[in-house]
Amino acid sequence: MNAATSWHYENFDPSGSAIGYRITGKLDEVQSPFQKIEIYGSTDWGNLMLIDGAMMLTARDNFLYHEMMSHPALFTHAAPKNVVIIGGGDCGTLREVLRHPGVERAVQCDIDEQVTRMAEKWFPELCESNGDPRAQLLFDDGIAYMANREPGSLDIVIVDSTDPVGPAEGLFNKAFYESCFRALKDDGILVQQSESPLVLLELIKEMRGEMGKAGFTAFQTLPFPQPCYPTGWWSCTLARKSGGFDFRETDARAKAFDTKYYSADIHKGAQALPPFVAAALGG
Amino acid sequence: MNAATSWHYENFDPSGSAIGYRITGKLDEVQSPFQKIEIYGSTDWGNLMLIDGAMMLTARDNFLYHEMMSHPALFTHAAPKNVVIIGGGDCGTLREVLRHPGVERAVQCDIDEQVTRMAEKWFPELCESNGDPRAQLLFDDGIAYMANREPGSLDIVIVDSTDPVGPAEGLFNKAFYESCFRALKDDGILVQQSESPLVLLELIKEMRGEMGKAGFTAFQTLPFPQPCYPTGWWSCTLARKSGGFDFRETDARAKAFDTKYYSADIHKGAQALPPFVAAALGG
Repeated sequence: MNAATSWHYENFDPSGSAIGYRITGKLDEVQSPFQKIEIYGSTDWGNLMLIDGAMMLTARDNFLYHEMMSHPALFTHAAPKNVVIIGGGDCGTLREVLRHPGVERAVQCDIDEQVTRMAEKWFPELCESNGDPRAQLLFDDGIAYMANREPGSLDIVIVDSTDPVGPAEGLFNKAFYESCFRALKDDGILVQQSESPLVLLELIKEMRGEMGKAGFTAFQTLPFPQPCYPTGWWSCTLARKSGGFDFRETDARAKAFDTKYYSADIHKGAQALPPFVAAALGG
Repeated sequence: MNAATSWHYENFDPSGSAIGYRITGKLDEVQSPFQKIEIYGSTDWGNLMLIDGAMMLTARDNFLYHEMMSHPALFTHAAPKNVVIIGGGDCGTLREVLRHPGVERAVQCDIDEQVTRMAEKWFPELCESNGDPRAQLLFDDGIAYMANREPGSLDIVIVDSTDPVGPAEGLFNKAFYESCFRALKDDGILVQQSESPLVLLELIKEMRGEMGKAGFTAFQTLPFPQPCYPTGWWSCTLARKSGGFDFRETDARAKAFDTKYYSADIHKGAQALPPFVAAALGG
């Protein structure tokens, strides 16, 4: 590689492991009221976004996360119309949600407007549905937003947040989940990014415990590959007030939009938890 | 962490990405006639083995690779009795193969005896079946070994090699695959570690092409998580002379040994290739 490239590493203390990229330089940086957002160019992964030093997304592999944060839940719900995304300021999850023609309204509520401004500038492909008349972009506190929703008004709430430290800490506890529980209809689904099934199993278990205390009765953790996050193996967790996780397989097979990672078969496959994960979560 | 720890990174040039670990120090090092083998201690992953600077395995996550390199093939074959492992000097694949009570003979042929000596010393849990009377450990050239096998004598050949550069380069081409084809029975299965489905799809496609030129007619690439390898997402590829990849699901469900990652459902799930992988390999 040419002399202008260098390597940028993120050391992830909780797992004692690191992930790095060969970068071509820093393209942008902003210190918002909440966090520091940095954009790097890379030789093989397109643009990278870091928040407070933690890798948030790369142009090359974010499809894995965004597709798995949205389509499993939207194909599990019988007819999702009203969706709220808490966090998700890069707008990639919003774009995937809006691929579902039955969705009538998708509100994205991220506390930090600068994340979206940086995404618009450096990841315009993720923002291509921001002008959709069904989309509403709010820049506000997600905890307060959910606390103020009309009871039983939402079909799906997707918590597309950073790790449970800093601004996102309040998105991983019973109080917040109670707001989600109240705001969801009886057949509603809560989705949360739930970290690495290899090194953060305890966190997933605690999260499901908090969801249970808030009233949710059924849980489903779906693992998927995500190279830019610690260990390269990530998960989302779905929680329901009632009902299970059979999904609209026929609709998923016949979907009118393309996906790169998600498919009905991938959805089914992700439901098979490895024995060591099932044993840890099963208790 | 205490002052004695530091971070060790492996920069993987083909993908422009890196993986690193918080290490407690170098425990051992040997320069064999073939390669440099290093052992590090780590804070969260147990011992690490590096070969020529490339991460080979960690105590914590090698079960993913070793289980997926062995059990899918052994449960796909109707009754595997004679198994050969080319490479695999850390003995982890051998251990998994020998969990199958029907296996009568498992030969591990690694060119570098020092890999096995280091594994015995620093990863004794992987070597716990080395004394099994069905096991034979050879330290020899795998290419020559396969070229000299009696035609139609083997049920499964597992190529558990390093990347296709250096000593392992000759294990990824038509000539070597022809030896495997000849040595396998008509219902035999060839398995090869096949790198990252995200960044090395072209390599997987080329490998399948070379296997096809050697006479193999059916291929199956199974992705799985593997945090210590580039991108954290890896794969193995199975090739058959005839027949398909329906596996002995009932036997897999009833298996008399424990696994941490592999299960019949994981096996089924891995058969669902993400659309972008299927599109690239399908041609």
